[in-house]
Amino acid sequence: MPVGLSNELPQIHPVAGAYLGATAAKIKKNGKTDLVVIEFVEGSITAATFTTNACCAAPVTVAKQHLAKTQPRALLINSGNANAATGEPGLVNARQTCAWLAAELGCQPEQILPFSTGVIGEPLPMQKIQAGLPDALANRKVDGWAQAMAGIMTTDIVPKMVSRVVKVDGHDVTITGMAKGSGMIHPNMATMLGYVVTDAKISQSLLEQCLKQAVKKSFNRITVDGDTSTNDACTLTATQQADMPTITDENSPAYQQFKAEIDDVMTILAQMIVRDGEGATKFIAVEVNGGQTEEECLKVAHAVALSPLVKTAMFASDPNWGRILAAVGRAGLVDLDINKLQIYLGGVCIVRDGGRAADYTEDQGQKVMKNEEIEVRIELNRGAVSETVWTCDFSYDYVKINAEYRS
Amino acid sequence: MPVGLSNELPQIHPVAGAYLGATAAKIKKNGKTDLVVIEFVEGSITAATFTTNACCAAPVTVAKQHLAKTQPRALLINSGNANAATGEPGLVNARQTCAWLAAELGCQPEQILPFSTGVIGEPLPMQKIQAGLPDALANRKVDGWAQAMAGIMTTDIVPKMVSRVVKVDGHDVTITGMAKGSGMIHPNMATMLGYVVTDAKISQSLLEQCLKQAVKKSFNRITVDGDTSTNDACTLTATQQADMPTITDENSPAYQQFKAEIDDVMTILAQMIVRDGEGATKFIAVEVNGGQTEEECLKVAHAVALSPLVKTAMFASDPNWGRILAAVGRAGLVDLDINKLQIYLGGVCIVRDGGRAADYTEDQGQKVMKNEEIEVRIELNRGAVSETVWTCDFSYDYVKINAEYRS
Repeated sequence: MPVGLSNELPQIHPVAGAYLGATAAKIKKNGKTDLVVIEFVEGSITAATFTTNACCAAPVTVAKQHLAKTQPRALLINSGNANAATGEPGLVNARQTCAWLAAELGCQPEQILPFSTGVIGEPLPMQKIQAGLPDALANRKVDGWAQAMAGIMTTDIVPKMVSRVVKVDGHDVTITGMAKGSGMIHPNMATMLGYVVTDAKISQSLLEQCLKQAVKKSFNRITVDGDTSTNDACTLTATQQADMPTITDENSPAYQQFKAEIDDVMTILAQMIVRDGEGATKFIAVEVNGGQTEEECLKVAHAVALSPLVKTAMFASDPNWGRILAAVGRAGLVDLDINKLQIYLGGVCIVRDGGRAADYTEDQGQKVMKNEEIEVRIELNRGAVSETVWTCDFSYDYVKINAEYRS
Repeated sequence: MPVGLSNELPQIHPVAGAYLGATAAKIKKNGKTDLVVIEFVEGSITAATFTTNACCAAPVTVAKQHLAKTQPRALLINSGNANAATGEPGLVNARQTCAWLAAELGCQPEQILPFSTGVIGEPLPMQKIQAGLPDALANRKVDGWAQAMAGIMTTDIVPKMVSRVVKVDGHDVTITGMAKGSGMIHPNMATMLGYVVTDAKISQSLLEQCLKQAVKKSFNRITVDGDTSTNDACTLTATQQADMPTITDENSPAYQQFKAEIDDVMTILAQMIVRDGEGATKFIAVEVNGGQTEEECLKVAHAVALSPLVKTAMFASDPNWGRILAAVGRAGLVDLDINKLQIYLGGVCIVRDGGRAADYTEDQGQKVMKNEEIEVRIELNRGAVSETVWTCDFSYDYVKINAEYRS
């Protein structure tokens, strides 16, 4: 069961100017909701980030091209089929689905951003999408978030949503977001999608900056097994419907407040993906302090967070500090002085002066490791930079899920 | 059971000038052989390579310092305790064991290279080593290879030895080597050690060059889970006892023949470590051709060889080509054109023209995947460089071994 998550949805605050519709178009074999349209009122602006995987899926390529030309009026999302590794026909198909939706909405095909998640390498089932579109469109509404959330899930065990009304420079601003992904790692699944919508009034350049920085510290700071997917994408749309002056100054309190809220929403969504990681029984934060650069902090954090040895020890609730130390050592830092290094499990110092901390006892470590949520803190003591990465443990179920997925 | 290996030792050809002794000094809890001395006749020369892990063990630091000063007269190896993450006392202990052995052999402490493998973070049991040394020394002999092999094993399931007499420019040369390591990945174990001895007459500079190049294409081309150990080391010693002219020219047929044999011996030893990888049920070669640089070939090969998704699919004998393609895509190659890419499983083309090969059938892939030894070949078609990496699959037993190791 996902760590610290439940099946219950939070209270969802609809965002003025965003209309969500969904239907079961039979793309998924289990007959569940799998086709989603999110329409935005005219004047909305959208920023987006996409996977850096060179074998990115057709919808990623098409969405990037469309976004470069104009502002989107709608997102078209299907689950059950990733339209990835489908070559030129995949691109033609992705564009065709945009054309169909554009015709219904009375806009240009370039004003539609397509997204797909699901099995890799199978042709997109075009007839099913064409047949399902009218129904998805017909039921679109501002409070259609729950059905949309259901429509983007694949092997996710729980829905992942955050919704809040916040004060930005004294004005009410709504932010509602959803994400799917069970660790960026699903078998043939092309995985992580995130959609955050706000009614804030904000300039395009600040919206883009805000998304870029928020993703960097949230979705780009989670890892389940290092396998990034071909379809990962995240969008941030501002419908501009809130009663407020437009945010145009990055040094204004309004922007700082807005940015802090978006950071927080995206961080929670990202962590939810890890908490729902395949086979996860523990949620682990790896915090690296005292680094010289962001890059070296991340090298260390990823070496620890991705180490199968550390992850299996976490699964076993084993305070196996030697594995953490060895992972730090192989992270590739130049002139790392092991004698300056400190490693903490929860609040307990486990490594100091080049070896096991003199006052450490196995009992102390064991007590920390029994928790479902564990913090590993690494003090490099050679600079002032900090970075945190979130991950989960590595269990029998991870192997089971990934070995048996297609059988 | 290790893939394609047995418990049987090969025919071992003793190397003139190398005397191996071993004893059970009770460092290992199970009472098995754990202390080894390999003495070399005067005039022998040794080249060595060591782990790049910044948290390297005390014996690694000491061995490097000793090697920089003089030629070794003996190697002193213990298993059961890694003397890693032991701080300053660990260095003092490693030097002390060298001093003890040097006194027995009547040489300088700097003429001894120390090696340790076993549990991390525990103090080296000095009394046991001191007490065991006389016995290990007393039984040293040119045909002591089998007992020495037993003495360097920790969690290895099978011994790993290669021995042969070859012709080098018409002269008989003996090469005998042994390695230990169950995938560089053992829990608290600090893992990979390799010792190759030959009676060849060769210059120090060519011996060093030969080792460096051989290790690069053998021990540095294997991976089980990406966790490199704190104690990895490999030595190549030439006792100079063969009846031949000294090899001094790197362009001579003699050097080329000698180098080819060393390459081959080290490659077989390295592959044995992967075949005995924790929980391994498959031996996998990942061959990348048509790259622009060695670096990019290795990036792709490692992305595939380290992907838990690929490795669990291998365990399941599932020809899950989407996972291999996604791993290639995230390897970080600049301007990788997915449409030029071809991926083969065994001889079967599974990916071509940006997606599943048109003539591929699941049956063909299934047939390849049922084998114990599988070749994944990736044709980048953008250059002339090739690289191969060897790995094993990722099974339930991997998680079991690593989660339960200390309990």
